Amino acid sequence: MSASPSAAVVVVGSEILMDGRRDTNGPFIEEALAREGIASVLRLVVGDDREAIAAAIRVAAARAEIVIVSGGLGPTFDDLTREGAADAFNLRLARAAEIEAALRERFRRRGLTPPESVYRMADLLEGATLLRNRVGSAPGQILGGPPTLALVPGVPAEMEAMVTEDLLPRLRLLHPAVPSVRKVFKVAGLYESEVESLLAPVMERVTALDRTILASPGDVALILRAREHDRPLLERVGREIAITLGDALYSVSDEGIECVVARKLTAASLKLASAESCTGGMLGGLITSVPGSSVFYVGGVVAYSDAIKKNWLGVEDRTLALHGAVSAEAAIAMARGARERARADLALAITGVAGPGGGSPGKPVGLVHIALATASGETERRLDIPGERASIRLRSCRAALDLLRRDLLRAERGSPA
Amino acid sequence: MSASPSAAVVVVGSEILMDGRRDTNGPFIEEALAREGIASVLRLVVGDDREAIAAAIRVAAARAEIVIVSGGLGPTFDDLTREGAADAFNLRLARAAEIEAALRERFRRRGLTPPESVYRMADLLEGATLLRNRVGSAPGQILGGPPTLALVPGVPAEMEAMVTEDLLPRLRLLHPAVPSVRKVFKVAGLYESEVESLLAPVMERVTALDRTILASPGDVALILRAREHDRPLLERVGREIAITLGDALYSVSDEGIECVVARKLTAASLKLASAESCTGGMLGGLITSVPGSSVFYVGGVVAYSDAIKKNWLGVEDRTLALHGAVSAEAAIAMARGARERARADLALAITGVAGPGGGSPGKPVGLVHIALATASGETERRLDIPGERASIRLRSCRAALDLLRRDLLRAERGSPA
Repeated sequence: MSASPSAAVVVVGSEILMDGRRDTNGPFIEEALAREGIASVLRLVVGDDREAIAAAIRVAAARAEIVIVSGGLGPTFDDLTREGAADAFNLRLARAAEIEAALRERFRRRGLTPPESVYRMADLLEGATLLRNRVGSAPGQILGGPPTLALVPGVPAEMEAMVTEDLLPRLRLLHPAVPSVRKVFKVAGLYESEVESLLAPVMERVTALDRTILASPGDVALILRAREHDRPLLERVGREIAITLGDALYSVSDEGIECVVARKLTAASLKLASAESCTGGMLGGLITSVPGSSVFYVGGVVAYSDAIKKNWLGVEDRTLALHGAVSAEAAIAMARGARERARADLALAITGVAGPGGGSPGKPVGLVHIALATASGETERRLDIPGERASIRLRSCRAALDLLRRDLLRAERGSPA
Repeated sequence: MSASPSAAVVVVGSEILMDGRRDTNGPFIEEALAREGIASVLRLVVGDDREAIAAAIRVAAARAEIVIVSGGLGPTFDDLTREGAADAFNLRLARAAEIEAALRERFRRRGLTPPESVYRMADLLEGATLLRNRVGSAPGQILGGPPTLALVPGVPAEMEAMVTEDLLPRLRLLHPAVPSVRKVFKVAGLYESEVESLLAPVMERVTALDRTILASPGDVALILRAREHDRPLLERVGREIAITLGDALYSVSDEGIECVVARKLTAASLKLASAESCTGGMLGGLITSVPGSSVFYVGGVVAYSDAIKKNWLGVEDRTLALHGAVSAEAAIAMARGARERARADLALAITGVAGPGGGSPGKPVGLVHIALATASGETERRLDIPGERASIRLRSCRAALDLLRRDLLRAERGSPA
């Protein structure tokens, strides 16, 4: 293809092969590399077996210039990646005194006295450099190569921080790649197939761009990639896509809708409250996953029972008796109650049937009502969501945030809802 | 190890390596094999590249007696699994007249006249037998071996039907496997390294058992596997482990602590409420992820702001002024307020510094106070959690559920806290 290097990822962990634990590290690392213009040609998943790890690293090294191994760097008996990597290239492992000292200090500060075997984590391959673990205790390491070999932890948060903050900068220096140009379009409130057919007229005329659609409940991402010389084409197609998607396009970065809402509320100095029934707190959890959310989010009520809907949100008996707890009227009353009682500028409410039980012919599993209360009144939307409990709940939360986003968008444009 | 055969899965598809499309076929096939007592030792993911497919199949065949390749069986130019498999073992491909005829009939009935190249789908490896595709058009195939080689489609619904209905019955005949026995031990409130050193005396004497430790924030799972003839050993070691772990062992099934708490509350007919600050609703979200949680969970308050802590939970100004919102006193007041005002039997409260901002020398990021209110008073625990925001929040939720679980355990034993 070009001067850009190729990579192979080795994922270590018996639990992935044996216990149905999904591997998300392979895809994370491959996506991170793709953003650097480094194409992955092979992924291997092996168990916690020293000889299998060594064999996998050898196979990876035979097919790629960069080999990244994730997992098996912890302190326990089944963490064998260091040894497997040493075997793969006939390298020695040596205890790094300064890493061991740092680990001792780290445990001392936490009041822990782990067994001495823990300090296996300080064993470095000869010639390797430490990769810093900001999140946990297991250090990573990198060997210049060829092939370039990096060992990173298997705990996702530790791996992600290490890859992003320490590994990628080093790879950039070792392997100046052909940068690939990338655009992302994040879409709320549409299904993957709807996005596909909306964009078909634009996309059919374009063959020089790599494209991917990624979908999770209530969230669709379209990713386009081009070589540097196709950048003008990518820009032009990007503008056409933005026009076609209209207000359904909520971001052109890799961020969730909760981040966009957080930014808008912070900028407008508005306070948000929430009232949740079937999502049970997930909406609040999603909102507060954004650091700094206390600036705009005051909190709210998890109104799982009817008593809490009445006593804490002021939903009237009559509303519940006449329309039921899963109704437009209940959603509106919940949002209004949360806004008034939490003294917020805005409030979101969700009530629905998340299943698997609790459905009826008139109110089937997947029926969800969401509402937004503002100073100028309430807006309500009915959702009919296919699928199972977890995806119904997540899609409901994102739909509620999208209802709020569109309202904030109208306000920004000077035409209140 | 014994008579039970090993397997390797090759997943073909550039979209998995390049575009972050998650592979679910590898895990599906590995789980299906595990239920047959067939252990997977390796998974390879390769792009739509004939030479790479051939190389991956050779690597897989060198390490396992059964090789299953998923994907690349369609009719388009980038479907190259048949050719790659032929290259891997120097086999010829021959068009199977009866399969071609069946495909022609299938397209005719659907009113389609596809290009002739589509009939590449009828090419069989010499000696191979057809695997029926009940869902789509691309046939699969199987070669007795050794190694046993099976090619199945990449479209999940087609692959799943073919594996379950046609491939597994054939594998059972070809490889009568030794079923493997498995035990899981789920532990709350301990770090992975603590579990490891606690169990070291038991585990060091045992070599005939396969073991894995899985850790996610606030949750550790130890998994032991044995051959059928080692079942008595597994049972004995299991009893020793249970005694060593004591009350930290919360389950011997693959379930989260929220499921155990749900079962205990339901059995005891107790109602639970929640009051969350730094977790912002995640605890409620976790509790209500269990279907049927409305039986025991009434809801609660997301008390993100001090005003909500005061107005909705009755936390006194004095408590906040004297001790701060992140304090044992605030956690206790929140739990007491939630229990009383939601008219529940029990209430959990969480308040802490989830970071990355908001920390101070006296109250650093990771300081969390959890409290449980019961009819007989309040219990409180201070947590000092390392790591970043997401893991601090998840670990806080699970620690709160564990505080509740241990209280319910004492009540079950007739010695109230």
